[in-house]
Amino acid sequence: MSVAIDPFIRSVPGFLTSATYAGLRKSQVDDLSLIYAPKGANVAAAYTQSNVVAAPVIVSRQHTKDQNITAVIINSGNANACTGEIGLQAVHTTCETLASVWESEPTDILVGSTGVIGVELPVEKITSKIEELVSSLSPDVEMLERVARAILTTDLTVKVASAVVTVGDASYTISGIAKGSGMIAPNMATVISCVLTDAPLSKGACQQIWDEAMGKSLNCVTVDGDTSTNDTAVLMSSGQALSGVTIGMGDEGYSEIKDAITGVCIELARSIAKDGEGATKLVTVKVAGAPTDADARTVALSIGNSPLVKTALFGCDANWGRVAMAAGKAGVAFDQSKMSIMFAGIEVCKEGTAVPFSEEIAAQALNQSEVEVSIDLGVGFGEATIWTCDLSYDYVKINGEYRS
Amino acid sequence: MSVAIDPFIRSVPGFLTSATYAGLRKSQVDDLSLIYAPKGANVAAAYTQSNVVAAPVIVSRQHTKDQNITAVIINSGNANACTGEIGLQAVHTTCETLASVWESEPTDILVGSTGVIGVELPVEKITSKIEELVSSLSPDVEMLERVARAILTTDLTVKVASAVVTVGDASYTISGIAKGSGMIAPNMATVISCVLTDAPLSKGACQQIWDEAMGKSLNCVTVDGDTSTNDTAVLMSSGQALSGVTIGMGDEGYSEIKDAITGVCIELARSIAKDGEGATKLVTVKVAGAPTDADARTVALSIGNSPLVKTALFGCDANWGRVAMAAGKAGVAFDQSKMSIMFAGIEVCKEGTAVPFSEEIAAQALNQSEVEVSIDLGVGFGEATIWTCDLSYDYVKINGEYRS
Repeated sequence: MSVAIDPFIRSVPGFLTSATYAGLRKSQVDDLSLIYAPKGANVAAAYTQSNVVAAPVIVSRQHTKDQNITAVIINSGNANACTGEIGLQAVHTTCETLASVWESEPTDILVGSTGVIGVELPVEKITSKIEELVSSLSPDVEMLERVARAILTTDLTVKVASAVVTVGDASYTISGIAKGSGMIAPNMATVISCVLTDAPLSKGACQQIWDEAMGKSLNCVTVDGDTSTNDTAVLMSSGQALSGVTIGMGDEGYSEIKDAITGVCIELARSIAKDGEGATKLVTVKVAGAPTDADARTVALSIGNSPLVKTALFGCDANWGRVAMAAGKAGVAFDQSKMSIMFAGIEVCKEGTAVPFSEEIAAQALNQSEVEVSIDLGVGFGEATIWTCDLSYDYVKINGEYRS
Repeated sequence: MSVAIDPFIRSVPGFLTSATYAGLRKSQVDDLSLIYAPKGANVAAAYTQSNVVAAPVIVSRQHTKDQNITAVIINSGNANACTGEIGLQAVHTTCETLASVWESEPTDILVGSTGVIGVELPVEKITSKIEELVSSLSPDVEMLERVARAILTTDLTVKVASAVVTVGDASYTISGIAKGSGMIAPNMATVISCVLTDAPLSKGACQQIWDEAMGKSLNCVTVDGDTSTNDTAVLMSSGQALSGVTIGMGDEGYSEIKDAITGVCIELARSIAKDGEGATKLVTVKVAGAPTDADARTVALSIGNSPLVKTALFGCDANWGRVAMAAGKAGVAFDQSKMSIMFAGIEVCKEGTAVPFSEEIAAQALNQSEVEVSIDLGVGFGEATIWTCDLSYDYVKINGEYRS
């Protein structure tokens, strides 16, 4: 069974959400949001692999250990990274204030933050809004859409996806939101992503599915090769779809639900690459014929992170020599005389040398909103797909003027 | 003894040079040049570590094995990379044609090529010019300056440096030329570099000095993290300064000559970073307090290759959070609470958190043609320095329109 992934969001039974403006962002748009599971949720989370880690990641990592969570609170406008003890205290204060409303444990709450690094988080702006956030919690999809917008920073588009899986008599909903546009590179490729489901997944199933889904989606995106201090991706399972049942690995519905969650995450990952800072196109890099899948991924990322490849794609220039260069520098052994390269379906290099092609047709093929670059190393069966974008003037504009 | 490195070039006894226009570049400027040592030269060479390797690198690597060479012929305008058997044949034809003039061995000749990848090299344009090249060979510095210009591609400036070392009664000259502006990243950081000396270095001394010099200079430059298929750096020792003497490791003059050669290479490396494609400033990244020197280098390159750091430097924005991010993603373990960061001498982060500073003064300090970014990880004694440049609109312009 193949699950259809929809580019819109659905409300998910067992979850309430709310969003408001807390004054963390300069422009007066929602910047604080809450996802609440009144009956709790099994959870799996992935965090940045960076050695410089934001305070909310340090705390949330601890809170994720028992894999049961009641709420996620997310702010944009301030990363609360490189803020030392004061930053950690701000996260604890946020969790304690929120937990006191429900008389629950502060450790049942996760915190996500995204925004500028190294600026003290004015935590009172958050705590003073918690009562309002809680009182406006809603099961409606419109509120979840507001949350999807409230977590954005330099993003131009909201990133959402959803699916409905039917297995026998049961029907499960999966809805995902994400933000991310710059400082995007594998090892948890997005600053904030939450996927909600009412499927009654066991803790073990949550973790297993999330690990697999990340490996095929958010960990396969790169905009600029830069890894955030704040990357946080959370899967929450409310279990509201079926009472008295728990779906573990291998149980009926497990693989269908896993496929749907992975599909939702891939759609979010593609949305992030497509909305990469300054991007004019979504670029899919496919590598085949590598010694191993891991080697293929290494080569794919070398191509996807190469400024020379990315500027050529911006210029709609089928300059395949740069793809060969980027593959060659990746540190993966292959025989260049067996290498073939295609741009947007046009073979430009075969057995390591040029294939005559029409520059005009190639330029047209590259002048699209979605473009595929594929390379076959011709030595094995390793494959990988990653998503990236081109490198444009606007990337420089956005990031040369970000703080000012 | 510290050797003064001069930003100009000197002729070197034992070497003749010439340059001409062979029609490989579109614009009618010299694109073919020859460096000739009539009595031969001991040589050490470093080549690209890429797995996709240009034909001239494959052949020259073979020809370097006996460490004795009579000539280097260099063309710009065509990399002769990804050109298969035809490309290899072109290199052999070039060497054979040139060797036949002097009745020497084709294996005594090195070939360097730089330019677009994946386009067949019209070798007859080279062979038809060899007679002219040979007949115009000259010991004059003006001709060496023409060679330094003839090897350029997207470079805006000629890269040259020289030094004179006096040890006892003997005096040695060292002159270096280089080209490189894009597709620049460590593991042999420049497409073409030649350093000539009349010091009578032994083969072993040549190799030892070159390995050390590369590790401190050309292998410490990054413009865009992209490694060329054609990187070639050659040290040639004519031995003309003293007859009947050979300087090996540890002999009188060895360390002074080594320091001078390293100094010349560092000056060339800095020139390459300063003339990086689209660069508005030379950026020196210094890392201290790392567990090891190798760790320091890894962190320095992560910072120097970060598009977010480089765009912030272009925007004269002391956005130190991006430096912390780039250090954190490097895969080197350190305690973020001990990290300190300086921009152009201004402390902006201490013990992992912000230090108040004047944004205005910092912006002025960053609005210079040379800027230093330094980070102390506070955990050990490992140090490294690398050179890079900022990422500007012009980088995108140059590389989005390169072939067209």
